[in-house]
Amino acid sequence: MTHARAEAAENIKNAMVNRTPFIIPGFLAGAVESGMRYSGRLDLALISAQNPAGCSAAGVFTKNAFCAAPVELCRERIKKQPARAILVNAGIANACTGEDGKKRAVEMARIASEALGIPAESVLVSSTGVIGMQVELDPVSRCMPDLVRSLRPDGWGDAAKAIMTTDTVPKIANTDVDLEAGTVTIGGIAKGSGMIAPNMATLLVFACTDAAVSPEVLDYWTRAAADNSFNCITVDGDTSTNDSLVVLASGATGNQPITDIESGESQAFGAALTSVLHDLAIQVVMDGEGATKLIEIEVSGAVDRESARQIAFTLANSPLVKTAFFGQDANWGRIIAAAGRSGAPLVPERVSLFFEDLCVFEEGTPILGEKVEQEASRIFRQEKIRVGLSLGLGEASFTAWTCDFSFDYVKINASYRS
Amino acid sequence: MTHARAEAAENIKNAMVNRTPFIIPGFLAGAVESGMRYSGRLDLALISAQNPAGCSAAGVFTKNAFCAAPVELCRERIKKQPARAILVNAGIANACTGEDGKKRAVEMARIASEALGIPAESVLVSSTGVIGMQVELDPVSRCMPDLVRSLRPDGWGDAAKAIMTTDTVPKIANTDVDLEAGTVTIGGIAKGSGMIAPNMATLLVFACTDAAVSPEVLDYWTRAAADNSFNCITVDGDTSTNDSLVVLASGATGNQPITDIESGESQAFGAALTSVLHDLAIQVVMDGEGATKLIEIEVSGAVDRESARQIAFTLANSPLVKTAFFGQDANWGRIIAAAGRSGAPLVPERVSLFFEDLCVFEEGTPILGEKVEQEASRIFRQEKIRVGLSLGLGEASFTAWTCDFSFDYVKINASYRS
Repeated sequence: MTHARAEAAENIKNAMVNRTPFIIPGFLAGAVESGMRYSGRLDLALISAQNPAGCSAAGVFTKNAFCAAPVELCRERIKKQPARAILVNAGIANACTGEDGKKRAVEMARIASEALGIPAESVLVSSTGVIGMQVELDPVSRCMPDLVRSLRPDGWGDAAKAIMTTDTVPKIANTDVDLEAGTVTIGGIAKGSGMIAPNMATLLVFACTDAAVSPEVLDYWTRAAADNSFNCITVDGDTSTNDSLVVLASGATGNQPITDIESGESQAFGAALTSVLHDLAIQVVMDGEGATKLIEIEVSGAVDRESARQIAFTLANSPLVKTAFFGQDANWGRIIAAAGRSGAPLVPERVSLFFEDLCVFEEGTPILGEKVEQEASRIFRQEKIRVGLSLGLGEASFTAWTCDFSFDYVKINASYRS
Repeated sequence: MTHARAEAAENIKNAMVNRTPFIIPGFLAGAVESGMRYSGRLDLALISAQNPAGCSAAGVFTKNAFCAAPVELCRERIKKQPARAILVNAGIANACTGEDGKKRAVEMARIASEALGIPAESVLVSSTGVIGMQVELDPVSRCMPDLVRSLRPDGWGDAAKAIMTTDTVPKIANTDVDLEAGTVTIGGIAKGSGMIAPNMATLLVFACTDAAVSPEVLDYWTRAAADNSFNCITVDGDTSTNDSLVVLASGATGNQPITDIESGESQAFGAALTSVLHDLAIQVVMDGEGATKLIEIEVSGAVDRESARQIAFTLANSPLVKTAFFGQDANWGRIIAAAGRSGAPLVPERVSLFFEDLCVFEEGTPILGEKVEQEASRIFRQEKIRVGLSLGLGEASFTAWTCDFSFDYVKINASYRS
């Protein structure tokens, strides 16, 4: 990686770390070093709701046929409501671990519930790391008293650090929403860097709010927000066995619970949740394994959103397109070729391609010349690049975010056992 | 790349170059340096049929919506039959070049036809290289006399060199078939290294035979052979605007033309054509951009061939799986996770995974332990690795070939304007 590129990657990361810590009334977060697989770093996080009645909980999970044991546990427990805590370990995924793995996930929850003095069924568990390895319960038991002692209203930064695997920076985001009963906060943490693609990827996301929201409304907005955030990003097209997005709403703010999806308060809440998850999703792409650039791909003029989405993700996952961005080579031919193979309806003579506002291909014909080439090259040296592909067929559009494909992606993934 | 890996890549390539040259009665091949885009290397190839009546011709072409001008020209002319020559340039793809590009493809054919003294409509044209750039006609005109003079019965090696782009070695293959009227030869050349995926990729393949075969039978076997060869390989999941497979049958051997697909002679011919194309396809994967390993992925026990194919290609295109092979890390978890996200039907408890004959995951449960790990590591250091995924659901299977994903893939594609 050249010096300029290393600097670009660094700038992207600095923009992410300089976040101010936040507090979500009714929740505590904390983390410890369990040493289960990593040493010298936080690797076990706990989120705990102080409201004794527990929280509304909603979740979106991996669609992978091999879903990890903690994912199954979360799915079951969220159905039953309420949830009171989430225990997360990094380093071992507890995926493809058979019956033994399921028992261990249940046992992790039990250990945490005992220490917190709450029902075992109200504890959710999440894991990320190597597939096929069993989580160790001894370190969990041993560290649990320290983990409970570590709980603080502003412990989100530590929790975000503890759930990282190949991430280079922790990811946190928050926003406020004004409801009639007062201002509520939505805050969240995420981890994810490789195996990121629609349908959630090796992605763990935990968001909490002090608003009171019924489980049905929370489920609705969690799914909608996931669709407009994590389902719009990709790093490498791979998805994982452990992807989990869990949202807890404690009601500590004392508002009348939001029970009507159509209500103004519900819409305001949904928009705010989407903005927090979108913020986290972009952070995940910017911290994509080996990424030096953030690329926004907007496909417009499509016959429907699904075909716009199909083209956007074909571009966003194409190794040839992604290596061209890394090489800072404004190689629009690869983008056009990738669009052409996507399988979505397109009429070559109507297709135009833009880098930022520069048109390089207009209705099926390249715009050649030294000047266009120079301007395109300048744009390709930016850290954030907007690509616009206009199909000229209809009104639908879709925007996907991806990163470039660098030497470091290969380096990270040739050496990390994930 | 470590020394051992560089050596592995070298060995793979040496196995390919040491091919004996062949002759196909009734055909001449040749090449020159036109200097259109490259300098100091062959970049313009010509294949010429000596039979004045011309040849049966068949072709399979890219499904990319943006197909290149020469692809359109070939499609039209093959419909009309017969074909007498193929002119191929490397360096400029003549794709996304609008009306001007179409005229230039026609003009290239005309220049060749004049020099050969044959009808312009009987000349096919093929191009590979940078998208969006116009081919230059002056170098084609200037070099044509030399190109015609270069035609020789054993000129296939030069022609194979002239059509290379990011290929590191030329690709040639041949076989003989015994028909009643005597032995006939099928020989072919191919180029392709990146943008290789089912549906042909940036792949040019030209195969010729002295057998007499009707256009209908030739079309049938060309499609069937493509399905069992080039449509079973991938390097990076990207396909191109220029993919072309053209087969010419001259009938110089004087056999009764094969007109019945079901006949024994037809079946023998089809099997031989498939073996030549399969040989070329494996050479393309082995020369995959940056490849150090050839990986054979067999998915068996599927409910149908399509779902086996879907899983095989999900694995074969997964950057996480491919970087694990480059890293020589027997990371079966990534393979299982990729299978799980393929969308094809599977029941985790019935899935087993093998590296060569070593079972590492049996009916949903990992086979752990030092011994398995060591043996798997040994297998991952091989240059050719067989991966077997058994679904336990049915009788269908599919085998795909891919290569690993290395630093050099990124290097090649970050710097080459294709």
